[in-house]
Amino acid sequence: MPTTVQPAVVGATGYTGAELTRLLLKHPRCRTPLLFHDRDEAANADFAELYPWYADANASARLPIERLDWAQMQRAGVDVLFLCTPHELSRRLVPQAVERGLRVVDLSGAWRLKQATHRAVYAFEDENPQAASALDASAAYGIPELRASAIADARVVANAGCYATSIILALAAWIDGGLLDVNAGVVCDSKSGVSGAGKAATARTHFVEVSDNFSAYSVFGHRHTGEVLEQLGLERAQLQFTPHLLPIPRGIFSSIYVRARNGTRARDLDACLREFYRDAPFVRVRGSGKLPEIRFTLHTNYCDIGFAMESDGPRVLLVSCLDNLVKGASGQAVQNFNVMYGFDQREGLQ
Amino acid sequence: MPTTVQPAVVGATGYTGAELTRLLLKHPRCRTPLLFHDRDEAANADFAELYPWYADANASARLPIERLDWAQMQRAGVDVLFLCTPHELSRRLVPQAVERGLRVVDLSGAWRLKQATHRAVYAFEDENPQAASALDASAAYGIPELRASAIADARVVANAGCYATSIILALAAWIDGGLLDVNAGVVCDSKSGVSGAGKAATARTHFVEVSDNFSAYSVFGHRHTGEVLEQLGLERAQLQFTPHLLPIPRGIFSSIYVRARNGTRARDLDACLREFYRDAPFVRVRGSGKLPEIRFTLHTNYCDIGFAMESDGPRVLLVSCLDNLVKGASGQAVQNFNVMYGFDQREGLQ
Amino acid sequence: MPTTVQPAVVGATGYTGAELTRLLLKHPRCRTPLLFHDRDEAANADFAELYPWYADANASARLPIERLDWAQMQRAGVDVLFLCTPHELSRRLVPQAVERGLRVVDLSGAWRLKQATHRAVYAFEDENPQAASALDASAAYGIPELRASAIADARVVANAGCYATSIILALAAWIDGGLLDVNAGVVCDSKSGVSGAGKAATARTHFVEVSDNFSAYSVFGHRHTGEVLEQLGLERAQLQFTPHLLPIPRGIFSSIYVRARNGTRARDLDACLREFYRDAPFVRVRGSGKLPEIRFTLHTNYCDIGFAMESDGPRVLLVSCLDNLVKGASGQAVQNFNVMYGFDQREGLQ
Amino acid sequence: MPTTVQPAVVGATGYTGAELTRLLLKHPRCRTPLLFHDRDEAANADFAELYPWYADANASARLPIERLDWAQMQRAGVDVLFLCTPHELSRRLVPQAVERGLRVVDLSGAWRLKQATHRAVYAFEDENPQAASALDASAAYGIPELRASAIADARVVANAGCYATSIILALAAWIDGGLLDVNAGVVCDSKSGVSGAGKAATARTHFVEVSDNFSAYSVFGHRHTGEVLEQLGLERAQLQFTPHLLPIPRGIFSSIYVRARNGTRARDLDACLREFYRDAPFVRVRGSGKLPEIRFTLHTNYCDIGFAMESDGPRVLLVSCLDNLVKGASGQAVQNFNVMYGFDQREGLQ
Repeated sequence: MPTTVQPAVVGATGYTGAELTRLLLKHPRCRTPLLFHDRDEAANADFAELYPWYADANASARLPIERLDWAQMQRAGVDVLFLCTPHELSRRLVPQAVERGLRVVDLSGAWRLKQATHRAVYAFEDENPQAASALDASAAYGIPELRASAIADARVVANAGCYATSIILALAAWIDGGLLDVNAGVVCDSKSGVSGAGKAATARTHFVEVSDNFSAYSVFGHRHTGEVLEQLGLERAQLQFTPHLLPIPRGIFSSIYVRARNGTRARDLDACLREFYRDAPFVRVRGSGKLPEIRFTLHTNYCDIGFAMESDGPRVLLVSCLDNLVKGASGQAVQNFNVMYGFDQREGLQ
Repeated sequence: MPTTVQPAVVGATGYTGAELTRLLLKHPRCRTPLLFHDRDEAANADFAELYPWYADANASARLPIERLDWAQMQRAGVDVLFLCTPHELSRRLVPQAVERGLRVVDLSGAWRLKQATHRAVYAFEDENPQAASALDASAAYGIPELRASAIADARVVANAGCYATSIILALAAWIDGGLLDVNAGVVCDSKSGVSGAGKAATARTHFVEVSDNFSAYSVFGHRHTGEVLEQLGLERAQLQFTPHLLPIPRGIFSSIYVRARNGTRARDLDACLREFYRDAPFVRVRGSGKLPEIRFTLHTNYCDIGFAMESDGPRVLLVSCLDNLVKGASGQAVQNFNVMYGFDQREGLQ
Repeated sequence: MPTTVQPAVVGATGYTGAELTRLLLKHPRCRTPLLFHDRDEAANADFAELYPWYADANASARLPIERLDWAQMQRAGVDVLFLCTPHELSRRLVPQAVERGLRVVDLSGAWRLKQATHRAVYAFEDENPQAASALDASAAYGIPELRASAIADARVVANAGCYATSIILALAAWIDGGLLDVNAGVVCDSKSGVSGAGKAATARTHFVEVSDNFSAYSVFGHRHTGEVLEQLGLERAQLQFTPHLLPIPRGIFSSIYVRARNGTRARDLDACLREFYRDAPFVRVRGSGKLPEIRFTLHTNYCDIGFAMESDGPRVLLVSCLDNLVKGASGQAVQNFNVMYGFDQREGLQ
Repeated sequence: MPTTVQPAVVGATGYTGAELTRLLLKHPRCRTPLLFHDRDEAANADFAELYPWYADANASARLPIERLDWAQMQRAGVDVLFLCTPHELSRRLVPQAVERGLRVVDLSGAWRLKQATHRAVYAFEDENPQAASALDASAAYGIPELRASAIADARVVANAGCYATSIILALAAWIDGGLLDVNAGVVCDSKSGVSGAGKAATARTHFVEVSDNFSAYSVFGHRHTGEVLEQLGLERAQLQFTPHLLPIPRGIFSSIYVRARNGTRARDLDACLREFYRDAPFVRVRGSGKLPEIRFTLHTNYCDIGFAMESDGPRVLLVSCLDNLVKGASGQAVQNFNVMYGFDQREGLQ
């Protein structure tokens, strides 16, 4: 276990990149991260100017965001590379980074999916399909509550998607425990704040289009669906997932409708959750009859889980909340990083 | 068919009462409504002072809101009484109004439910149980797209609930047409703006508690559930309904998860909706693959309905949107009023 | 006075263009407007698809938005052209329209300023400087409460700016009446909702950048400053105007700090306002001690004005509110149109 | 200088009390604070239940909020009492606390004002006027950037008001340096998020009343005016302060309009600010032409200051931003506490 690690971040100008940079800057095991932007045309920028709210009083502490430069990384002794880049770019950069001996936490969807049918939604065009295929097989899915040992050993960690994290963490315990009748269908009605759509200014992120409004999108086709299916071992026909856009800057709320197996009581569901997450520092089981709200988790790395069971069963509403930029992205990336380097999962996250 | 009608409004100080007053003030068939407040202790107020945005430039046009006074109503020749009152008060006032020969549109939940088991959630204590029971039986459920002839003849119209309207209008066509497998379960994940919680200042309506947040409430027990079951002819076990609080002032969005019967195609679902609402001026069928958003309906009496069907069926996401203060309350009250008096449903609503 | 007029709108895809189209569609003196977009590259669109909330139930009523076409306008007998276009484009189109005999209401800043020093902020490059100069001189400034007779006669009306309208209407009465000590300075601290920045998706209009935030912009250099100076007859040194961005979709609130002349009492200020706007249907004088709020005016063509005077004088806080898309843009454009054609100012605006 | 200090908080259920409790819980020099509520009728509550977002994963760590109990405080060895109470209650509790030998940081307005004419707005009825008068004289005004030595020695620190902090910190340097013509008038147009109005549910804090709206209040009479006058040495006639309500949960933005003395240049103003706050860890001088925004300071103890000067002078727009619950209340209380006990001002605040 090293004392300190030298990280670099590609894509530090976006929302997840900025949140990640903020976390790494105060991480006790990290040296000051090298920051790169992800677009060739971008002029060099300064992190403290782009995100003054993350800067401290000493304005002299500049944090330049520069053009991606492998040689500079080598000179600086970079150990681990965090990619906050579009999936096409991650698909291209990760093999290059691995070749140079770096470990990688990729926050895009590029390396999360094991099944080619699921990967089809991304339509990757790999320069070296063989190398890509090997990485597809070896990359660890980055949700430390479920995949800690794979993450600890991995060269590449594919940080879990924001919606996927909220759904997988909510359902994993009961599915693992065999408490659900998944053939009766699992409906995930999820809602996300606007930062989930990224920093690009589009019609979908315009204040006037979003405020006082609510809408669904990517119905029957959101890219996180495959992650949920693979990680929970569900069939496509068993899961229905609809994402919606909330008029708030950040936060995810998933309302999940399931049926418990015959004879399962609320107390069984409660106990199963508590046992499953007994040693998970970032899952707060609120339990039976106690539903979390988005604000419980904002600006934290917690995923809060609660549920309500119909008095005469078997129907259950399961709710999970998290901050899409923290537990749904950059906080989880740091948590994965901690597992990769043998640090306490909580380092730099409290 | 009368030329003009004299209305009175009880509870004109609240959000639905104010919206209703605004609509009645510009209704071509209504004389200026008499306005009453619904709390004994309330001092007399003036509508134009409470709701300056509804007043026109001529500040001299005062609209006093006074203590409920049956004699004053009689002197003014009131024909129809609109109640924007808590359900306990509506339960008390409606028999008194009927006794005095008035027709009533009640916007509370007091008279909507036909089955005693459903009514139990309200725990009414009636002064005259026999009279109440007779009115329970005779009151028309106030959703004009489905119950126009009963409404036309009714002495008392129980204006449909806001959530109930959004769900019933979305599902009625397909259930009526036998296109759904309702035994596979109907999940209604509904979201409402804060005005649905009324004008009372509570922890639930405090700006700081609501903004940047999202939460579920009344899980497995919301009072509108009974309306939906009765109007759609569903069993309790077939329907799961969860209301959520959106950080916006107004609007309802219902995400409804259903399964179509074997062999049903998207075009059948689309055609069924269009045919069912062919003559309904306030239901806009957006159709297959076109989901409405809350903003499409704000400040209007429209309910917009759209859906998406899985490519290989049978799962369907059905979405309906409306403005909870208009089609979900006061606009629908005016629409019911139009039907009661034989006017065009659109009078005063465009 | 004609019975009906044929309007056309250029720039109907933007926020002011859409609001204007909505108003013209229900204007009793207007035939259905021809709609054009303002960008050469834009594909043809349909108004009812872009703005479904403005469409009525009858989906068959398509409203195509097409490429600007003078010949088509001529064939359709267009009388008046509304320009919701960037000022550079308005500067180019207005001379062409006038040449073709059309009357014009231009909603941009292209023709509002009489003094070349003020116009300098726009840096116009006119194809025909002489014609432009003549139109600069003859265009009427479009604020009907102050310039009705010029507007009635004008070929080109330069619709007043949104901030400018809120400031000019608030101050005009007292300056005209000589009740202010303008040499003591006039401070206008104005706040606008995001739609004032237009429909273009930019960093400034991104939901995440705007929500939970507040900021100032264009300090000491906003383009509306010249309008205010010219219309109120103030010197640059007498006025300080700062616009700010409010995290709401629409509405302007101007806090104006002035000093009354010695001996002026609150009742004098109040009486002056009431007298000045006695016949103005869209200015609601709330008077002394009664400050308007933005919501009083949303979705209306009203400008609400109120003030508070220090008990021992002479300092006064003057507040005006309006909806930047209605009285600050499209509503005022319709009001100007009504004056141009001799209709009641209120036609189509209530 | 002690190693650790035992704090107690009265009023821990409100917004400032909760924010303060959160800060004290992670303060390296504080033992776990005792928590009391400020209302006799309040049932005992648990902090982690009231504010789940401040609780960590270990749900067993209960933090009871109990009825105020001096004996319990004595047994626990409380050193310092933080009062997040209404000013009437602070007026009553502070003499009792001092009598018991406690040091006090009072977050209300009860002890901030030195001049009786200013105190008149609070209309205190003291049980022991003589003791109260002595405390009025001896209490230190709690703004550490300006009053550090008085705070270090004080038994009672009157934590500065939120608006007052934003205005005083912005103006203190230039007034101290004699760079302003204060006789030309100082206009402070301030805007605050809703948490500034407290946790009580009122018409003023109802989501529907606040959202999509903006309003002014307490014109010519806000209670923070006296603080600003006293701390900056201004005459009442020199200052005009108007607070406004922003539709956001937290944050203050003050737009301050001043005139520089003849011959003062922007660079002089900039240098004066930087020099004045050279050793102030929580004032970030953004300087000339760089205006802060509210989001720069949210959830931090920073006050950000920037300004813009007219090119030909002498007019200046000065802007300061802070988080009303942190630098405007609880963060500043901790900063004052640090000064009182000789700790680094930054302890527990980064």
